[in-house]
Amino acid sequence: MIDITDIQAAAERLDGVIVRTPLLRNAELDRVANGAVLIKPECFQPIGSFKIRGAYNLLSQLSPEQAAKGVVAWSSGNHAQGVALAGKLLGIHAAIVMPEDAPAAKLESTRQLGGEIITYDRYTEDREAIARDVAAQRGAEIVPSYEDERIIAGQGTAGLEIAEQAAELGLDVDNLLVCCGGGGLTAGCAVAMHARFPEADIHTVEPEDFDDTARSLDSGERVANSPDARSICDALLTDMPGQLTYDIMRKHIKAGLTVSDAEVREAMRFAFRNLKIVVEPGGAVGLAAVLAGKVDTAGKTTAIIFSGGNVDAELFASIQTERT
Amino acid sequence: MIDITDIQAAAERLDGVIVRTPLLRNAELDRVANGAVLIKPECFQPIGSFKIRGAYNLLSQLSPEQAAKGVVAWSSGNHAQGVALAGKLLGIHAAIVMPEDAPAAKLESTRQLGGEIITYDRYTEDREAIARDVAAQRGAEIVPSYEDERIIAGQGTAGLEIAEQAAELGLDVDNLLVCCGGGGLTAGCAVAMHARFPEADIHTVEPEDFDDTARSLDSGERVANSPDARSICDALLTDMPGQLTYDIMRKHIKAGLTVSDAEVREAMRFAFRNLKIVVEPGGAVGLAAVLAGKVDTAGKTTAIIFSGGNVDAELFASIQTERT
Repeated sequence: MIDITDIQAAAERLDGVIVRTPLLRNAELDRVANGAVLIKPECFQPIGSFKIRGAYNLLSQLSPEQAAKGVVAWSSGNHAQGVALAGKLLGIHAAIVMPEDAPAAKLESTRQLGGEIITYDRYTEDREAIARDVAAQRGAEIVPSYEDERIIAGQGTAGLEIAEQAAELGLDVDNLLVCCGGGGLTAGCAVAMHARFPEADIHTVEPEDFDDTARSLDSGERVANSPDARSICDALLTDMPGQLTYDIMRKHIKAGLTVSDAEVREAMRFAFRNLKIVVEPGGAVGLAAVLAGKVDTAGKTTAIIFSGGNVDAELFASIQTERT
Repeated sequence: MIDITDIQAAAERLDGVIVRTPLLRNAELDRVANGAVLIKPECFQPIGSFKIRGAYNLLSQLSPEQAAKGVVAWSSGNHAQGVALAGKLLGIHAAIVMPEDAPAAKLESTRQLGGEIITYDRYTEDREAIARDVAAQRGAEIVPSYEDERIIAGQGTAGLEIAEQAAELGLDVDNLLVCCGGGGLTAGCAVAMHARFPEADIHTVEPEDFDDTARSLDSGERVANSPDARSICDALLTDMPGQLTYDIMRKHIKAGLTVSDAEVREAMRFAFRNLKIVVEPGGAVGLAAVLAGKVDTAGKTTAIIFSGGNVDAELFASIQTERT
């Protein structure tokens, strides 16, 4: 199981490659929360999400022989771009299995980064089987989106930065809210945050019909979501937590929170109106949880991560202009 | 005429009051510019624009007697909110003369900040006369939007921060592009930037039909815009440079650049797609100038200011979804 030294090593590999995103505050958000809210805008990373952290951390540790055979990943979008960019930076061929209905922005951007895109039908085909097949044929390395210690440690560098930046501001982090799909970002950030602020309460935030992590943590065993579940949070539509990520999360997570799509939309409007930041649905769940009062923020310092900002203009426009 | 010590004094007054906005970089923007582009996102200030800097710097220097009598300003947008917020923070009554048909959102946010709104009919009444009348009756201080050394020095703190933050990154600023209406931000930032980087080329950027500053600098005397001029850059629609701002700009500005509304719209799309930042039309002119190649950025370090992010959701949505 990873510890803080793995995350520090990842931070060294990433130094100068990724953006050390700032930690932002906003008076209106503090007012609504009745406390300090620290925003980590990972949407400002080159690919518009934190996923470059884990992908680069993994790819940069491949042997020359492995690197020469390339890598294969599956992803609805952000991990695809992370792997494609890491591959481009390191000169490693990256093939990505992506759902054919992934957001156009994510497909296009992955292609522009030089990623080889292999599409599949999200509801009838098994992306993992397709990817493993391609990998076997090529002898290529699989780059999981969360179930790998190198990925988890890489994503954890975001949490390490939050802890360092909060300390620079003279603040102790009381709450950390992390957008949770498979749990890679959560697990890594939890390890980093508890190494720096052992008393911090760490919460996952999931779409209400994709609350597999919340229920898994609650029941003590990994459980899956209904196949009929739907949400606008395309970045968080994983079936269940990974085994590695779950084992880490069990040790660190206070409770799993959930938000509705309507609360996510409201958070995206708040971010537009008050923060002037473009955040994608899956990246806005932490803000949604704060705005909807799902965690006690009064008099406390609460850190939230905007995990990404890759949202199609049409969806963004319809959310911003809808009458509520 | 102000110098760097006035701006340093303003920075001390503003310390802990305003946000020291970060200086951001983006790989795609650097690629397009073929150089380093440093973005100062003043849209992240509490009121969504830099205007709090000058307003607070002025209001915080009023004597107790002046403060007790309150202040009066006229504005239909960002300056109104800057004066209202500064008044709220300092406990000074702020009256703002605003057109009765101003966007409801701007009236509402000024009111929420505790501003007393005095409406007028923009087709039949003179807002400046109304404001001077109110000020005379109350013995209140007028807070101009640019033609005041305290305002100019306050806005200049944005330029001082850019210079300091660039130096922290180990970069010399070669170009500074400033969104220009009346010239308060430009004049203040120019003084600060040249104190730190004497060799920097400083450019104003204006909408092409509101190029009063460019033509004034070119001709050696202040000239006005045509009354028929129109632009989506509502924050930059001033008639001509101020006398104070013009005298400072003459000493510092290399050349005035202009951009079309179409170039501004494209810049707002680039900011959404690649930077994940909401920037208003008038705040996007510097980015528009870089993207349209109006200044030589190759191999250089170019700083641009996103002066504000207060744009109606409907306009933003229509710009983001328009077919180009």
